[in-house]
Amino acid sequence: MKAVIAGGVAAGMSAASKIKRVDPSAQVTVYEKGGFLSYGACGLPYFIGGYNDDPDLLIARTKEEFERQGISTFLHHEVIALNAATRSVQVRNLSTGDVFEDSYDSFLIATGCNSANLPIPGADLPGVFRVRSMEEGLLLKRVLSRPDVRRAVIIGGGYIGVEMAEVLAARGLETVLLEAVDRILLPFEPEFSVLATQELERNGVRVRVQEGALSIADLGDIRRVTTARGVYDAELVLISVGVVPATGFLKDTGIRLAENGAVIVDREMRTSLPGVFSAGDCATVYNRVMEEDSFQPLGTVANKCGRIAGGNMTGLRQKFPGALGSAAVKICDLELARTGLGERDAKKLGFETSTSMISTMNHPLYYPGSRKISIKLVCEKGTRRLLGACAGGGFGCGAVLRINALALAVQARLSADDVGMADFAYAPPFSGAWDAVHIAANTVP
Amino acid sequence: MKAVIAGGVAAGMSAASKIKRVDPSAQVTVYEKGGFLSYGACGLPYFIGGYNDDPDLLIARTKEEFERQGISTFLHHEVIALNAATRSVQVRNLSTGDVFEDSYDSFLIATGCNSANLPIPGADLPGVFRVRSMEEGLLLKRVLSRPDVRRAVIIGGGYIGVEMAEVLAARGLETVLLEAVDRILLPFEPEFSVLATQELERNGVRVRVQEGALSIADLGDIRRVTTARGVYDAELVLISVGVVPATGFLKDTGIRLAENGAVIVDREMRTSLPGVFSAGDCATVYNRVMEEDSFQPLGTVANKCGRIAGGNMTGLRQKFPGALGSAAVKICDLELARTGLGERDAKKLGFETSTSMISTMNHPLYYPGSRKISIKLVCEKGTRRLLGACAGGGFGCGAVLRINALALAVQARLSADDVGMADFAYAPPFSGAWDAVHIAANTVP
Repeated sequence: MKAVIAGGVAAGMSAASKIKRVDPSAQVTVYEKGGFLSYGACGLPYFIGGYNDDPDLLIARTKEEFERQGISTFLHHEVIALNAATRSVQVRNLSTGDVFEDSYDSFLIATGCNSANLPIPGADLPGVFRVRSMEEGLLLKRVLSRPDVRRAVIIGGGYIGVEMAEVLAARGLETVLLEAVDRILLPFEPEFSVLATQELERNGVRVRVQEGALSIADLGDIRRVTTARGVYDAELVLISVGVVPATGFLKDTGIRLAENGAVIVDREMRTSLPGVFSAGDCATVYNRVMEEDSFQPLGTVANKCGRIAGGNMTGLRQKFPGALGSAAVKICDLELARTGLGERDAKKLGFETSTSMISTMNHPLYYPGSRKISIKLVCEKGTRRLLGACAGGGFGCGAVLRINALALAVQARLSADDVGMADFAYAPPFSGAWDAVHIAANTVP
Repeated sequence: MKAVIAGGVAAGMSAASKIKRVDPSAQVTVYEKGGFLSYGACGLPYFIGGYNDDPDLLIARTKEEFERQGISTFLHHEVIALNAATRSVQVRNLSTGDVFEDSYDSFLIATGCNSANLPIPGADLPGVFRVRSMEEGLLLKRVLSRPDVRRAVIIGGGYIGVEMAEVLAARGLETVLLEAVDRILLPFEPEFSVLATQELERNGVRVRVQEGALSIADLGDIRRVTTARGVYDAELVLISVGVVPATGFLKDTGIRLAENGAVIVDREMRTSLPGVFSAGDCATVYNRVMEEDSFQPLGTVANKCGRIAGGNMTGLRQKFPGALGSAAVKICDLELARTGLGERDAKKLGFETSTSMISTMNHPLYYPGSRKISIKLVCEKGTRRLLGACAGGGFGCGAVLRINALALAVQARLSADDVGMADFAYAPPFSGAWDAVHIAANTVP
């Protein structure tokens, strides 16, 4: 069996490893456009911000380790065309410009995403950065080490925008975060976007919502970002306004793509073309609570779908149980997490909802270090089935790990009553005898 | 409706509050033998150890607050006899010695447990303590403030024994922990008992297993504990060798009791006598994974069963979904938790098992502060249904909150495959893209 994989980060390398575990005799070739394999892109903000200074820590496994597993990896090689009829791909060696052909029995599209284009003047000026690839991370870290870089404007209040705001402010930069819509961190419930904004501002970040960037001008050492409401000068501008699937090379293949260009796959990661699989940020993923395909470009989904794809490329028939839109983010001294449907999403999907929103201490006051935690639950009215949850509180309060319990509850279609009487492990340093999750569940009307 | 409740701590006061919420016109009377209501007995070690010095923090709600809710509470009043035929109880005022009768429509036995008797000479000497009631906690705290108290012997390596070992060692006492059987913390998997022993010893506690106390002698200011293997002198001896249901007053009522004296109840907390309910440490509790009654004298179960009992005393018909034997403990810089069946329990119940035991970092090394976490899973062979889990690691590693997710998985009868592909909320400060729980689940053979 000969497997070819386009893309060597989360989904691609998970698939490659899985193939070799299931079928050690398989021939596995990975073409990666960039210069790094299997790196933790989610760790880039912390590397850039100097929480650690060792880029090797971001690499889950090296090229040498993969080669020892019997996986052939080619860096700076881009798959530029696919011919599903002949089961072959065209590959460009980006170092030499040479193009060659390779053939496969099964092919995996794991090309991930590119940063979304921000269609304003000046978006491509030098001094205007993105943080998507390892290369961009290394570059940005070098830039930040320059003493004249004292001010930053971040355009976009998603995960990367807020994480970068934290690390830039922590490094002492005057930091402005611009968000075009009315709140940051849109996947979270509005109550928690407020917590995020407050925490950023407490840490010196100016958060400006409903204020999209209109242009970026080059003033020599300074970039000037203009919005409808003001002008912001900075040595560094960072654009993080979302991502788009890197699937341009598929446009003449007839493969089914979603509106945003993501490859449409079934729960076995099969595309509409025979022998062609896709997984990771470049593909759709089945959402178990929406009961439809969704776009969830996160490393955790990419790893899982990549592993499933790899198994199925060897002939297994494993189905992904589905994603739930689970996500977490740390902002300074705040942790936030979510799973399942938000209240608005649930209503849009036709659910009548019943919600609770509680704040309590994560453990009793008589044990030192208790912190406030807030939890919102979204249930289906009547059945009280848990559809989604959002939680937040001081870093270390356990909001994120509590969401993981609630994610399993959503996955298992448990009701608020099931969760409200769940037998959680209790001791005073960790929770109340009634945990915050119990309280939230028992408060659902 | 007239409700009488014997016992005013976790189960009793949960029931009382629930009754008033459901039926504000109900007449609710609580008789509590001790001098405190609704206190967090689980917090006593931390109060005694000086993690806080305010006994009021241990009180969830005061007598005055309950009275304002319309609940009549009598401290230092003990229910000494029950006549289910006439629906009446005899009550002794412990301050005056007076005995009087009260009648009820529904009666709740929530008398909790007493410390188990240790049948060795000297167990009742002055200077030999238990930590079960608020009064005992207050006394022990006073004793510890004396400068001549420099050495302690703790007899019994259960939850209270190890928690007290932590706080006594932290106060600088030379502390010896004696355990009669071959390991401490028996409800946990043996691998985790080892972690607990190591952590105690790292913190200066001498842990001696297979070494039961044979006698305690009075040497004036010193007590001498003799075992088959040695002699230990200390100013303070603490006995924590388990608990027994405080149900002696029921012996002539014909009520069904378990072998250890616990009141046998159904999932609605009804006893074998009409109009008589029981909940909390003095009662059995349905174990959902064992599918039989169990004895789980923990505050978290007491609160839930008390609330269910209270509702049903007003005429509701709520069933407790069942306990899972979930428990947690902190020992110095170690956190441990468990849920469901241990490997041995599962085999005893007739399950063929498949287990995994993994250790990994709780989050990537590139984010500061990652800690090692170990997880053991016990699954049913074949179906791969999750039967139980045990986890441990450095304090703050999230072992306890991860067990809560696994508790919901056991409750919902999920399999290792369901858990291994669960959509957990991921960001580098909290977990890996594959969380420790995923890794444990995906390692089950």
